[in-house]
Amino acid sequence: MSSSTSPVLSEKQIQQVDRILEGEEDHHGGVIVEMTNEPLDPVVFASLLKASLSHWRQEGKRGIWIKIPIELVNLVEPAVKEGFYFHHAEPKYLMLVHWLPGTANTLPANASHRVGIGAFVLNEKNEVLVVQEKSGRFRGTGIWKLPTGVVDEGEDICDAAVREVKEETGIDAKFLEILAFRQSHKSFFEKSDLFFVCMMQPLSSDIRPQEAEIEAAQWMPYEEYVAQPFVQKHELPRRIADICSAKKDKDYSGFSAVPISSAFSEKQDYLYLNGQCLDFL
Amino acid sequence: MSSSTSPVLSEKQIQQVDRILEGEEDHHGGVIVEMTNEPLDPVVFASLLKASLSHWRQEGKRGIWIKIPIELVNLVEPAVKEGFYFHHAEPKYLMLVHWLPGTANTLPANASHRVGIGAFVLNEKNEVLVVQEKSGRFRGTGIWKLPTGVVDEGEDICDAAVREVKEETGIDAKFLEILAFRQSHKSFFEKSDLFFVCMMQPLSSDIRPQEAEIEAAQWMPYEEYVAQPFVQKHELPRRIADICSAKKDKDYSGFSAVPISSAFSEKQDYLYLNGQCLDFL
Repeated sequence: MSSSTSPVLSEKQIQQVDRILEGEEDHHGGVIVEMTNEPLDPVVFASLLKASLSHWRQEGKRGIWIKIPIELVNLVEPAVKEGFYFHHAEPKYLMLVHWLPGTANTLPANASHRVGIGAFVLNEKNEVLVVQEKSGRFRGTGIWKLPTGVVDEGEDICDAAVREVKEETGIDAKFLEILAFRQSHKSFFEKSDLFFVCMMQPLSSDIRPQEAEIEAAQWMPYEEYVAQPFVQKHELPRRIADICSAKKDKDYSGFSAVPISSAFSEKQDYLYLNGQCLDFL
Repeated sequence: MSSSTSPVLSEKQIQQVDRILEGEEDHHGGVIVEMTNEPLDPVVFASLLKASLSHWRQEGKRGIWIKIPIELVNLVEPAVKEGFYFHHAEPKYLMLVHWLPGTANTLPANASHRVGIGAFVLNEKNEVLVVQEKSGRFRGTGIWKLPTGVVDEGEDICDAAVREVKEETGIDAKFLEILAFRQSHKSFFEKSDLFFVCMMQPLSSDIRPQEAEIEAAQWMPYEEYVAQPFVQKHELPRRIADICSAKKDKDYSGFSAVPISSAFSEKQDYLYLNGQCLDFL
């Protein structure tokens, strides 16, 4: 597809491409090349890549990463032809990698899990915040469920719970602790899933359901929520209700969030632990 | 690159391609097309894709997924030209997606987290199983650390802990509970990371360090492990040591793993919860 719009370089011209791709060294003996959005002829790119690989091999480099923005999708095929394979992708870019040593590949794996939250928001009247969704498998079933949502890349679980409750119901709530979590597999193609049930304290009471996603939202007497056939018939919601009941009656302790300094970024990380018996909380 | 090796189709020929791509319908009003490994001319593919998109639009389809194996990398560029973008990638394939409706995209997000484990294996002599790694940031530092590893896609956290301990040290161990976990961000490009500290009971005692990754492994008196400057100086290992000490002295309870029926697969899922006060364990 691409050569039809690109000048074809002669062998001589290709040999004249004596530059190599610019990249940053990583901490594992590798190189990370981020292609900018500027158009680059795929034949020139292939030639640059060949010269660069030869250079990096001589230098004893290990994993070579190339990040190609979607605008330069015509460079993906030449990279694969030079021995690169897919590592991961996001809407706007594809990350390819090439392991140069003859030894076994020790490159880090791609992200394997999606992370979600369910929020158990209980008010002083013993009512739980529940919603009916406009889409998904519960649509039109009349089932009242806990607000749920996806934890974004880079987002703390405790913050995601606060955000989702606010978005779906308009309720301000404070994260208290993680009551339990479930790991499941093949939830989305081959990817696995972690779902954290968060205990929350409501800080407001007026519900404003999110127009796009939420059909209805209400404060429901806790016993009424638990008595729903959906909750009683399915193992996961029933077990979660058992845990929420134990928490409500104050004889259960989950994991609270303790900020700690981060190993990787400026931002603080959170360590989630059972704070009931530890005096550093 | 590809058109140089492909016959160029005339407009008339392209119009003659009146088939559409075969796909499976998903549960969200979308279509999933899995390209087989058979070579396909990119011009023919582009034409098939145009016809298929027109058909799916008429049918009111929403998200259109195309999984392209790396062998057919020459089909990636034509797909992007028809409006597809990257969703996720694994070494052997790239998944592209195209949201057809005019409304906001409700496609599921890509996997956002990598998951790892650290194993706290304590024997009856109050010794903890520790290792020195051959690569990574602790190489050559003399620091003895807990065995750690990556949880694979599709693998249960409790199984990953057992596997990693066995692989790194040759020790058979039983998973007891998750003592704590840490969420961190930007650990690997933009991806986030969840690290679960697992309490394990050793079932054997003879250590055989893994040749490829482990420099040395030993049973170390617990107090000696904790007294290492590395553990004392850094917040995460110090906090984890505090939790391990509390567990060792039996006044801490983490989350145990309760098998439950899976929502997505034949396999059982695990719900992790504080089992100390719940009578269904």
